[in-house]
Amino acid sequence: MSETFTAIVVGVGNELLNGRTANTNAQWLCGEVYSLGGKVRLALTVPDDLSEIGEALLLSLKERPNWLIVTGGLGPTYDDMTLAGAAAALGLGLAEDPRAKEMILRKLEEYRAMGRATSMEYTPERAKMASLPRGSTPLSNSAGTAPGVLIKVGETTVVCLPGVPSEMKAIFDEHVAPMMAKGKLKTLTAEAEVKGLPEAALAPLLASLAKKYPVVYVKSHPRGFEGGSRVLVQLTGRGDQGVRDVEAARDELVAALQGLKAEYQITIKQDVR
Amino acid sequence: MSETFTAIVVGVGNELLNGRTANTNAQWLCGEVYSLGGKVRLALTVPDDLSEIGEALLLSLKERPNWLIVTGGLGPTYDDMTLAGAAAALGLGLAEDPRAKEMILRKLEEYRAMGRATSMEYTPERAKMASLPRGSTPLSNSAGTAPGVLIKVGETTVVCLPGVPSEMKAIFDEHVAPMMAKGKLKTLTAEAEVKGLPEAALAPLLASLAKKYPVVYVKSHPRGFEGGSRVLVQLTGRGDQGVRDVEAARDELVAALQGLKAEYQITIKQDVR
Repeated sequence: MSETFTAIVVGVGNELLNGRTANTNAQWLCGEVYSLGGKVRLALTVPDDLSEIGEALLLSLKERPNWLIVTGGLGPTYDDMTLAGAAAALGLGLAEDPRAKEMILRKLEEYRAMGRATSMEYTPERAKMASLPRGSTPLSNSAGTAPGVLIKVGETTVVCLPGVPSEMKAIFDEHVAPMMAKGKLKTLTAEAEVKGLPEAALAPLLASLAKKYPVVYVKSHPRGFEGGSRVLVQLTGRGDQGVRDVEAARDELVAALQGLKAEYQITIKQDVR
Repeated sequence: MSETFTAIVVGVGNELLNGRTANTNAQWLCGEVYSLGGKVRLALTVPDDLSEIGEALLLSLKERPNWLIVTGGLGPTYDDMTLAGAAAALGLGLAEDPRAKEMILRKLEEYRAMGRATSMEYTPERAKMASLPRGSTPLSNSAGTAPGVLIKVGETTVVCLPGVPSEMKAIFDEHVAPMMAKGKLKTLTAEAEVKGLPEAALAPLLASLAKKYPVVYVKSHPRGFEGGSRVLVQLTGRGDQGVRDVEAARDELVAALQGLKAEYQITIKQDVR
């Protein structure tokens, strides 16, 4: 399947590894990257641990993705160590960034003006959020205090975002998506809901479609018992060739389902950007 | 924090990397491992791709976890390639396992008896589900057709489970949890819901608790705006020492919150197995 850029997503947080919290950030980011024409090749989740964070970043950079998106660990507490982990792994060192400090002070002013704060001084914990790996760029956070951080490493753009979903999404939408969006592609998905055939009976048909149309992503999802029941078949393509091939593959699927006397219902989802 | 075993969790599936599907299997497995006294050190998600699956397994094995749990890619379709990826990466080769074939045939009989099936022959797609890396052990699946697969690799037990959550959970509960359960530990969590202090103001207090009680997992979760509002503080410990230290840390937290004149509410969750 054609894509215009690749990405790796890293989630940082003990709460993601003890079952307390679902890594909804990863799913959201994967969906955004996909709809912007990119492909997430790998998603990782690591604990709040300096060396594990650093190891995950180095491992990811070795794969040379266009984007490396890290979520979590940017806050004020002792266990927020994403920037320290990145700085150590990249050999960059941490230093107070005046632009980040300015962003944080402006936020504190906002909170003060709203009468929200009990203690709004520029404490060491807040200074920590302005302490960035040398050479990086802060990204303003319209939904919270900690700025996002962008670091260029070779051909990869590393972006560190807060773990709080509303803040992560705000920074992604405002700063990251517009940079990724340059390569947007038309996407077409044809879905067939098939009744009365087990997934295994559809498998040879789908394998031949996948072989004949290599740019089409062919996927089946069983619904209910194998012996039943329903199977959702999805054919997805991107770009001009992908859209044409999805349409051709859909027609062949329909003809084959009619031959098998299967019950089915076809839905087309088009996402043209 | 003390743990009796370590685990790495690998999810396989393109749908997990394009935003279509949340990796709820990873969260569920992390929670189970945690409550059984273990710790997930790393979670990975990779696409339906032979070499990416193999690479993830080798990378995980290098970390020498006690358990490596892989979900997804065990079904009958062309893009279910977890076992082929594992066999290739481990240099084991695939061969039909008579115990796995027997499990699948018994399932087909069951479906037939229930009048569910339209086509229940032992097709090549079903034979694929009985084709296991040499030296592995099939694990019966009470909720579906594809058996789970257990492979011993050095000090690591690799377990491959189906991606369908009901099947994954059935095999885990019946076969894997009892093996892990030998080292169960008592777990105690004290939670404090604190009002009227921003997270940054609590940070020095929590840092000192974490330093004084290294076996206690100290974590704060902001709720709402930083300037507001509420912060959930969690203190978790396992085993006798952990439980005693959580109680001591909770008392210190309460005393400090009283000193800061913060509003708070304490909840204790005990999980003794």
